[in-house]
Amino acid sequence: MADQITKRSENYSQWYSDLVMKADLAEQSQVRGCMVIKPYGYAIWEKMQRILDDMFKQTGVQNAYFPLFIPKSFFSREAEHVAGFAKECAVVTHHRLMNDPDGKGVVVDPSAKLEEELIVRPTSETIIWSTYKNWITSWRDLPILCNQWANVVRWEMRTRLFLRTAEFLWQEGHTAHATAEEAMQEARTMVDVYAKFARETMALPVIEGHKSPNERFAGALDTLTIEAMMQDGKALQAGTSHFLGQNFAKSFDVQYTDKEGKSQYVWATSWGVSTRLMGALVMAHGDDNGLVLPPALAPIQVVMVPIYRKPEEMEAILSKMEEIKKGLEAQGHSVKIDNRDTLRPGFKFAEWELKGVPVRLAIGPRDLENGTVEVHRRDTLTKETMSLEGIGEHIAHLLDDIQKNIYQKAFDFRQSNVEKCDSWDEFKEKITQGKFLLCHWDGTAETEQKIKDETKATIRCIPIDSFVCEEEGKDIYSGKPSKQRVVFAIAY
Amino acid sequence: MADQITKRSENYSQWYSDLVMKADLAEQSQVRGCMVIKPYGYAIWEKMQRILDDMFKQTGVQNAYFPLFIPKSFFSREAEHVAGFAKECAVVTHHRLMNDPDGKGVVVDPSAKLEEELIVRPTSETIIWSTYKNWITSWRDLPILCNQWANVVRWEMRTRLFLRTAEFLWQEGHTAHATAEEAMQEARTMVDVYAKFARETMALPVIEGHKSPNERFAGALDTLTIEAMMQDGKALQAGTSHFLGQNFAKSFDVQYTDKEGKSQYVWATSWGVSTRLMGALVMAHGDDNGLVLPPALAPIQVVMVPIYRKPEEMEAILSKMEEIKKGLEAQGHSVKIDNRDTLRPGFKFAEWELKGVPVRLAIGPRDLENGTVEVHRRDTLTKETMSLEGIGEHIAHLLDDIQKNIYQKAFDFRQSNVEKCDSWDEFKEKITQGKFLLCHWDGTAETEQKIKDETKATIRCIPIDSFVCEEEGKDIYSGKPSKQRVVFAIAY
Repeated sequence: MADQITKRSENYSQWYSDLVMKADLAEQSQVRGCMVIKPYGYAIWEKMQRILDDMFKQTGVQNAYFPLFIPKSFFSREAEHVAGFAKECAVVTHHRLMNDPDGKGVVVDPSAKLEEELIVRPTSETIIWSTYKNWITSWRDLPILCNQWANVVRWEMRTRLFLRTAEFLWQEGHTAHATAEEAMQEARTMVDVYAKFARETMALPVIEGHKSPNERFAGALDTLTIEAMMQDGKALQAGTSHFLGQNFAKSFDVQYTDKEGKSQYVWATSWGVSTRLMGALVMAHGDDNGLVLPPALAPIQVVMVPIYRKPEEMEAILSKMEEIKKGLEAQGHSVKIDNRDTLRPGFKFAEWELKGVPVRLAIGPRDLENGTVEVHRRDTLTKETMSLEGIGEHIAHLLDDIQKNIYQKAFDFRQSNVEKCDSWDEFKEKITQGKFLLCHWDGTAETEQKIKDETKATIRCIPIDSFVCEEEGKDIYSGKPSKQRVVFAIAY
Repeated sequence: MADQITKRSENYSQWYSDLVMKADLAEQSQVRGCMVIKPYGYAIWEKMQRILDDMFKQTGVQNAYFPLFIPKSFFSREAEHVAGFAKECAVVTHHRLMNDPDGKGVVVDPSAKLEEELIVRPTSETIIWSTYKNWITSWRDLPILCNQWANVVRWEMRTRLFLRTAEFLWQEGHTAHATAEEAMQEARTMVDVYAKFARETMALPVIEGHKSPNERFAGALDTLTIEAMMQDGKALQAGTSHFLGQNFAKSFDVQYTDKEGKSQYVWATSWGVSTRLMGALVMAHGDDNGLVLPPALAPIQVVMVPIYRKPEEMEAILSKMEEIKKGLEAQGHSVKIDNRDTLRPGFKFAEWELKGVPVRLAIGPRDLENGTVEVHRRDTLTKETMSLEGIGEHIAHLLDDIQKNIYQKAFDFRQSNVEKCDSWDEFKEKITQGKFLLCHWDGTAETEQKIKDETKATIRCIPIDSFVCEEEGKDIYSGKPSKQRVVFAIAY
């Protein structure tokens, strides 16, 4: 099973692709750049959705749904947004097919050309703000806190499953506020939600921070981000939250009457995470045997494999397993008994390791006699024989411990690959070795661009919660004065 | 509030549109035929999704996700399916916009024309069966039971919120089986799930049955349906489940090796319900005051309105309400305290009636003294004063009772509007009065078409669980022999 997967040390990128496909998470479809998310992969995404959705709602956010299509003219409204998004996208020009007059299947009906082309949404600020215009009159209508779970399309030339696909699934929150302060607070609240989710649910240590102006979302005054380190030392942007100022309100003329009766433009945020998180999950924790899933997101938390030679042994073992399963399910764990009788245990072990199931229980005839069970944990690949008494409590502890251990491992890995760096020669060398470098930066887009051109490294963020970076110094490239260090890395 | 809504007796169709908009369920977007589902409407849809999804999973179904786009050529594969679906649809022909050389916003980049046009999915049989081809080799790979929650697009000329929109949300299940019997059983299982959901959750009495060949899904050998009666006596098809035979397996060459080592084509089903259910919910239960929501789907089950003159009264009442709210929430009910201090109670009452909240509690200073509360139920518009003692238990019973009563009312209405009919003259008269007519039919498409041409009535279904229809007789139109009655009605 695992021998079908390229080793990380051989080719990390190929390892990733192998893993996504062999573990049945996703595959390329026959439509260029679009993926099929397979049931096992989708089950993980559903868990992410459910947990995030609850967290959003706890902050007062409600879900809604806005159209898939955006009239082309909407993209001309917000100048910077156009530049960023109106380029590579799917354009609907016709609304009918007809039988080919030459009898070769179907062709586009030329008489069904749309008056105005429709763009399949790459993101929904424009259509949502054109809607909010009708929802907002007075200060009493604010704030509006809407989120939608949706598919979006950005025409990408080079695609990779989950990390970069033409169509992907995501949530996009769009909020409207009376004041700049409130909107900035909302943007911060939501990136905090993302960071908490990444850390606690995905076991992913992330650095929270501001993007440099160059790396902001098209149309944003500030972009907050969470950045994670993958096992090759590259950075992956895992979620962003934008303070959009009044740009969209002005473009779509969305004003409210304040308590003093004066007209004011509305302040905006937007924030999103996508199926890209699936890629982060795989790359951050997987090993050469396959996926390593944090229990909080594992569709199956405990798998049980019976070991037997004779049919009557099997029966007795399966019956014991059903009993254990009931107990674990009553505690809220998801459990599977692998009772396929055409496969050997070793094959099953390898398959569930590949799929990243956190805990595996094996029971053989001798275990049955002794009242024991073999408990294997996926994260450390270690096993021990335990008494069946108190197994429920033990599994609960074990799952907690695995969740924490996966986080700690990723955290330690990152910590050992983050360095302060004050020498440009050192920078050039270390950045290619998969390090996050904490460097002084003079705050100019020019320097940032030059560093990117020479090394491919970008400013991932100006950290706000993970490192103490505020200190005087000199820009690593230009030598000009700098007030704080920022995180440089090569990114996905 | 309710005076902004047209009365049902004046104009049922306008009443529906008024209600959908005034109750904040949905509105037309600026994109032709596409709706915006507003937070209150979406909250109901989310409840539907959650409950249906659990029911699907209990039958062994897993969720997955397939591409939004389908290559045009796929539509030429299954002949009947083409005829049914490849006509009015959104066609993507280009993948890039560029700045207008004349400086007028953005235009489609003519150099970015796609080699093959992509169709925004109107339904996903073709893309899914082209995927299943790679998933299925042996009998061991079967059955496959996948569902996806997705948006689909069918270019409709005349649209109505929820009932018929260009883009809508739905779930589509697609299953693959080794035998015809198993696939037929699956199609039946799923229509049974829909019927159970409609009856128990939506409080919607539905008639389960087979479609006549004319009314089948394009490419199906059998279509099962649930049909509901709206308050104007028209029928609304609320969900369908199709036995697709081997049509798609043959079109996409999906074969499996059976236990004897022989190649066999795979058998298929598909089944779906959509945001159309929202329309059914509104039209089946609403009244001239607004929505009437079954408690099982109400985003807010209990709303509390404080009645006071002085601030200190308000404080005491709200504090008591918080206490009641906690108790009700602990029982699993969703509760809202309407503490807006700029609106009069009467206005609030009307607003929550409009929004269909099942139970309203009002507490004034005298209630506080007496330990009582005024309990108002939305379905009957009646109220009574009750002791606060045991209020939790009372509300639980009341919600149950309301759920049952809404169903019973709709059931009684339908029963009083279903008739056996054996005279063509009578048929023509009664069918326009909003009756479901149980008539003999000779089983031919010709007769069915003639009846439709003359009266607009269609065969809604050949019932399997709601009426005893098997008896010898003569076709109501042709006079030819018939073996059973079928349901005729005018449909949405």
